[in-house]
Amino acid sequence: MSARETITNYLARRAEEVNHWLDIFLPSEASPPEKLHRAMRYSLLAGGKRLRPALVLASGEALGAKTEELMPAACAIEMIHTYSLIHDDLPAMDNDDLRRGRPTCHKTFGEAVAILAGDALLTLAFRVLARDLSLPNPERQVLVINEFAAAAGTSNGMIGGQMADIENEGMQVDARTLEQIHNCKTGALISASVAVGGIIAGASDEMVERLRAYGKRIGLAFQIADDILDVTSTSEQLGKTPGKDQAANKATYPAIIGLEASEARARELVDEAVELASGLGVDARVLEDLARFIIARKS
Amino acid sequence: MSARETITNYLARRAEEVNHWLDIFLPSEASPPEKLHRAMRYSLLAGGKRLRPALVLASGEALGAKTEELMPAACAIEMIHTYSLIHDDLPAMDNDDLRRGRPTCHKTFGEAVAILAGDALLTLAFRVLARDLSLPNPERQVLVINEFAAAAGTSNGMIGGQMADIENEGMQVDARTLEQIHNCKTGALISASVAVGGIIAGASDEMVERLRAYGKRIGLAFQIADDILDVTSTSEQLGKTPGKDQAANKATYPAIIGLEASEARARELVDEAVELASGLGVDARVLEDLARFIIARKS
Repeated sequence: MSARETITNYLARRAEEVNHWLDIFLPSEASPPEKLHRAMRYSLLAGGKRLRPALVLASGEALGAKTEELMPAACAIEMIHTYSLIHDDLPAMDNDDLRRGRPTCHKTFGEAVAILAGDALLTLAFRVLARDLSLPNPERQVLVINEFAAAAGTSNGMIGGQMADIENEGMQVDARTLEQIHNCKTGALISASVAVGGIIAGASDEMVERLRAYGKRIGLAFQIADDILDVTSTSEQLGKTPGKDQAANKATYPAIIGLEASEARARELVDEAVELASGLGVDARVLEDLARFIIARKS
Repeated sequence: MSARETITNYLARRAEEVNHWLDIFLPSEASPPEKLHRAMRYSLLAGGKRLRPALVLASGEALGAKTEELMPAACAIEMIHTYSLIHDDLPAMDNDDLRRGRPTCHKTFGEAVAILAGDALLTLAFRVLARDLSLPNPERQVLVINEFAAAAGTSNGMIGGQMADIENEGMQVDARTLEQIHNCKTGALISASVAVGGIIAGASDEMVERLRAYGKRIGLAFQIADDILDVTSTSEQLGKTPGKDQAANKATYPAIIGLEASEARARELVDEAVELASGLGVDARVLEDLARFIIARKS
């Protein structure tokens, strides 16, 4: 990032790079099974901020890794994130019609194809991580796969958070439980994205731990900001149906501790994250700006 | 396998070993999210022949790998296989009520949990393959992950076969198309199981290619035998609903080329597989017997 580039421009620039590579990693719509490949591309190339890939790139580059070494992991984490959105939107789950500003995968391609498209994106993520061209160092490659598989899994991972979310629907939960759910559902993948940048760069365990701590804070801040946006935004701004959390009786920060306290908590987390980043001992301005962006964004 | 052990005994013995390790790799039902872990264990520990794990073990051991080096891959491939069964059984897919002799995952735990349990098993498979304890050689570990991810994927992989299966439902397909579907849907994972044994053992590319060719033949023979059993067996023997393929208007070998020609084709494939195994230049009696077992089995 040059001295005068804003974080919004930075994100837009990295998103373009990531989209270029996603297009390369995705199977062509012209190769069978065509309809399934179309569904995968429809959901994965539908836009989105590409925050997780940007975190992999920003963290890895701050610690000295080359962009081309980071790109497979950056693309893989976006595939994992997108598969989880496709499955979450299914009728048996959140039953959502709108995602990233257009009809959800199952609305466009049907439920069976949406289930398989999600499965296929999750599988492709690990394929991309295990391709021979991905990293010069196979040991780090294994560590990256382990990190992402753990973060996407059940115990303290994304699927665990989704399950807890479903189980607590309509229940009275306290702020602590909600924080745990959010840490799993959103925090785990975000935190893993930051950690993986460090792993690929060959950072020390202590450094990777600091990156994880930074990631955990911005992950939670991100989810609190999401909860706030769900209350305060329009469908056009969000690209998905707003007010769904309330309608589904889902626990949210504003509902439990109020809007003002939610905003204060998010600010506090971002401050902590900025401090963790600035203490890395390298030029981590992008990570600091990304942390601040988390609560400044409008969608 | 000792000289006097039958292949049925061999399979039962290996299944017991594999079940022991699956139990260790699976998260406990006592750790949250408990219900999800219960669903994963319900489907994965429901019995089953453990054919794919046995192929990993038999192939790897024939080429000199140690059992403990092979066990993570043996367990991972069974997790991938089981996830695919859970998702295939969903109402939006094959809508099946019975699997491995008991109610399907979504019948017992509901659709949302079944979707997540499948996702979680696929994710756990890659976690198990990337755990530090899994292999002394990280390069081979990456190759194994690549092999399984490709076999479970869309292009010429399991998900691709499942998609083609759905798309061709009720359509008139010829024997050639059916063979392609079967090669993807069942053959890819079986073939990868055999190849991975060789990869872990450090076999040459040529040797791994021969293992893949063997696996491709028994994979197709296995699916033809499955089609035959679907016509000739009872629900009690199968542990799943028989006659479902016909009822769903699915293309099967007996329906397209007749029962006798199907049996002849399966025998031919098994003969070719036995020849490929015996030409490996090592003691491959187990692989030969496993090939023969494929068409001799009753469930």
